[in-house]
Amino acid sequence: MTAADSAALHAADGSTGPDATARAASPHTPHADEVITSWTVAREAGVSQSTVSRALRADPRVREQTRQRVEDAARRLGYVPNSLASSLASRSGRTVGVVVSDLTNPFFPSLLSPIHDELQLMGYRVVLFAERTDIPSGQDALNRLLDRSIDGVLVTTATLRSPLADTLRMRGLPLVLLNRYIDGLDVDRVISDNRGGAVAGARHLLELGHRRIGVVRGPSNTSTSRDRMAGLQDALHAEDIALDAALVREGSYSHQSGYQHTRDLLRLADPPTAILCGNDIVAFGAIDAARSLDVRVPQDVSILGFDDVPMASWEVFRLTTVSQPFEEMATAAARMLAERIDQHVEIGPGREQIFPATLVKRSTVGPPRS
Amino acid sequence: MTAADSAALHAADGSTGPDATARAASPHTPHADEVITSWTVAREAGVSQSTVSRALRADPRVREQTRQRVEDAARRLGYVPNSLASSLASRSGRTVGVVVSDLTNPFFPSLLSPIHDELQLMGYRVVLFAERTDIPSGQDALNRLLDRSIDGVLVTTATLRSPLADTLRMRGLPLVLLNRYIDGLDVDRVISDNRGGAVAGARHLLELGHRRIGVVRGPSNTSTSRDRMAGLQDALHAEDIALDAALVREGSYSHQSGYQHTRDLLRLADPPTAILCGNDIVAFGAIDAARSLDVRVPQDVSILGFDDVPMASWEVFRLTTVSQPFEEMATAAARMLAERIDQHVEIGPGREQIFPATLVKRSTVGPPRS
Repeated sequence: MTAADSAALHAADGSTGPDATARAASPHTPHADEVITSWTVAREAGVSQSTVSRALRADPRVREQTRQRVEDAARRLGYVPNSLASSLASRSGRTVGVVVSDLTNPFFPSLLSPIHDELQLMGYRVVLFAERTDIPSGQDALNRLLDRSIDGVLVTTATLRSPLADTLRMRGLPLVLLNRYIDGLDVDRVISDNRGGAVAGARHLLELGHRRIGVVRGPSNTSTSRDRMAGLQDALHAEDIALDAALVREGSYSHQSGYQHTRDLLRLADPPTAILCGNDIVAFGAIDAARSLDVRVPQDVSILGFDDVPMASWEVFRLTTVSQPFEEMATAAARMLAERIDQHVEIGPGREQIFPATLVKRSTVGPPRS
Repeated sequence: MTAADSAALHAADGSTGPDATARAASPHTPHADEVITSWTVAREAGVSQSTVSRALRADPRVREQTRQRVEDAARRLGYVPNSLASSLASRSGRTVGVVVSDLTNPFFPSLLSPIHDELQLMGYRVVLFAERTDIPSGQDALNRLLDRSIDGVLVTTATLRSPLADTLRMRGLPLVLLNRYIDGLDVDRVISDNRGGAVAGARHLLELGHRRIGVVRGPSNTSTSRDRMAGLQDALHAEDIALDAALVREGSYSHQSGYQHTRDLLRLADPPTAILCGNDIVAFGAIDAARSLDVRVPQDVSILGFDDVPMASWEVFRLTTVSQPFEEMATAAARMLAERIDQHVEIGPGREQIFPATLVKRSTVGPPRS
C-alpha cells in the first residue's frame, strides 16, 4: 500500500509518476498490488481526475450526485484521499487525541462531530479526552493515557496558562489549539475573531439604545472570554460609555452559571436592560432565569449569546448571537494537525488561522424598555 | 506495577497478601517499588479500607467530602482502583471503541460522558466512532479503523439487524450493546425498560382523558423505538382503545423529525390532543412545531418525551418525559465490557442488565381541551 499511496500523492501533486503506464492498463476491479490513485477512482466513476480531487474535498462546485458517485467509487476501490505527505501504510492505525471539556455543553459536540469526521476521512482514529475546566486532574489523566500510540493532540479547552500544552510540547507531540490560544505559546491554532464578534454584538445593543449592559462572562483564564470582554470594552469605549462593574459576573461556560448570575442581575434594584452572555449555553441559562422570574425576553431584557450552536435557532430560543463557523474551524484544525504529524520536517513557527465571527439577529434582542 | 496491582486486586478481594507487612511499614510518600493498594490510600486519607472501596465506586453512603479526600489521596499516590482481574501493566494502553450516533442529539453526550469517565477511571482509552443512522458507510469506516489496537467495543447505536455486530463478532472482539439490543444476537447488553416506561407515559395521558394520541416514533429498525411503541399499545389495549394509524409518524431521533411530523399532525382536520414522542430531542422539535403554529403546550396539545436528558428540565421546556438512568447504564456497560476484555476465560452467554424507566411529570402534559 505504500507504493499505492506514494502514487496517490504524486497524482494529487499533478505529476504522473513512474507507474503511470501500469495504472492506465489496470482493470476496474483492482489487483491486490494495483496502485489505487485518484486517476483509478476517476476512471471508475467516469469523471475527470480533477473532479475526483474536488469531490473528495467537498468542493461546492461539484454537484451532490457527482460527489456521491465519486465517493462510492473511492469506497469500492478502497481509495483513501490523501493530499498530505504520508503513506496510508504508515498512517493506518494513527491516532489523534482530542481534548474537549464538558460534553453536555452543545458547543463541544458541535465541534467534535466535524473534527471526528475530518480526521476519520484522513484515516485517523480519534481518542477522546474529557477535561473539565473545574477538575485539575485532567493533567494526571493525560500523563497516564498519552503514550506513544498518540500521534498528535487537538486541544479545544486550553486555559491561558495551561500546563497541558507544556506537557505535550515536552513530549514533542504535534499540537493544535482549536478555539483557544495560550499566552506566549507559539503553537498552531485555529480561532475565530472573538473580539471582533463581541464588538459587533455590543454595537447592536448600543444602537438599539441599551446603556445599562450586564455581562455573564466565561472564565477569565480563557482566551475566548478575555477577547469577548475586550470586544465589549472596545464598543463601549467608542461611545464613551463605562461598563458598570456591578453588572459583570464571571462564571463557567454552563447553563447553571447563566441561570444563577442572570437571576442575580435581574433582581438588582436597577437591573441591566441587556445581558451579554459568555456563550450560547450561558445565554440559554439566562433565558431560563428570565422565564423563572416572569421577565420577558426581549421586552424586559435583551439576551445576546456567542457561538450559534444548532439549538440557538430553535423556536423556543431564537437566540440572537454571534456565529462562529464550527465546521470550517474544526476542519482547518484537523488538517493543520495532520500536516504536523505527516511532515517529518519542521514546518516552522506556530501558524494561526482566524475565522470571522458574525452577528446573527434573531428574537432575543430588542430595544430597551423606555 | 504488575506486582502493585496484583496486590491491589488482592486487597479489593479482602485478602491481605504476602506484602501486608511491607505495606504496614511504608511511609506516606511511596518508594518507586512500593505496593500501592487501597490500604495505602486508606492510610493516606485517614479512613478505613472499605471506605476507600466505597468512595472509589461512588457509593452514595460515602459523604462528598470524604469521597474527595479519598480521590485526592488516590491521585497523589498514583493508585488506580481496580476491582477486575487485570494488572495495570497489561491494561495500560488498552483501548475501547465507543460507537455513537449523531453527537448533536444531547442523548449521546449524556451517555458518552459517563462512559468515558468510567473507562478512563479503569485505565482505558476511548476511541470514538460516529455512526450516523442514515449513513451506511459506518461499516466501512469500522472495517478500516478497527485494527488490533482496539480491545473491545461498546455500541450505542445498533439497529435490530445490525451488520456491525456481526463484523465485531467475526473478529472475536468483546462487545457490549448499550441502550439497544439486536434480535437473535446473544451478546452483553445494558438497556432500560423501554416498554414499561412507555406504558407509564401512555397511562399518564390516558388517565388525564386523552383518547386521540399521536405518535412521532423513532426508526422502526431500533429496539428502543419498537419497545416504546409496544408499551404504548399495551396501555391502549388495557383500555380497549385503538391507535389511529393516521396519527402515527415514523422518523429519525432528531429535532427536525419531531418538528416536521408534529407540524403535520397539528395541521390535521382533527389533530391529536397529545403526542408521544420517540425521545426528548424529538419532543423538543415537537414543542418548537407547536410554537411555530401558535399551538399552546399543554393547553392545546400535550407533549411527552423519553430519555430525560439534562435539557428536559430547563425552564423553556419543563418536559414531561420518561427518565432513563444514563449514568448507571453507562457505568454498567463500561464495567461489563472491561470484564469481557480482562477475563481471558469465557464468561458464558450474553448477559443483560435492565434498568427501570420512570415517568417524570413536568409541564408539557395536561388534560385535553374539552
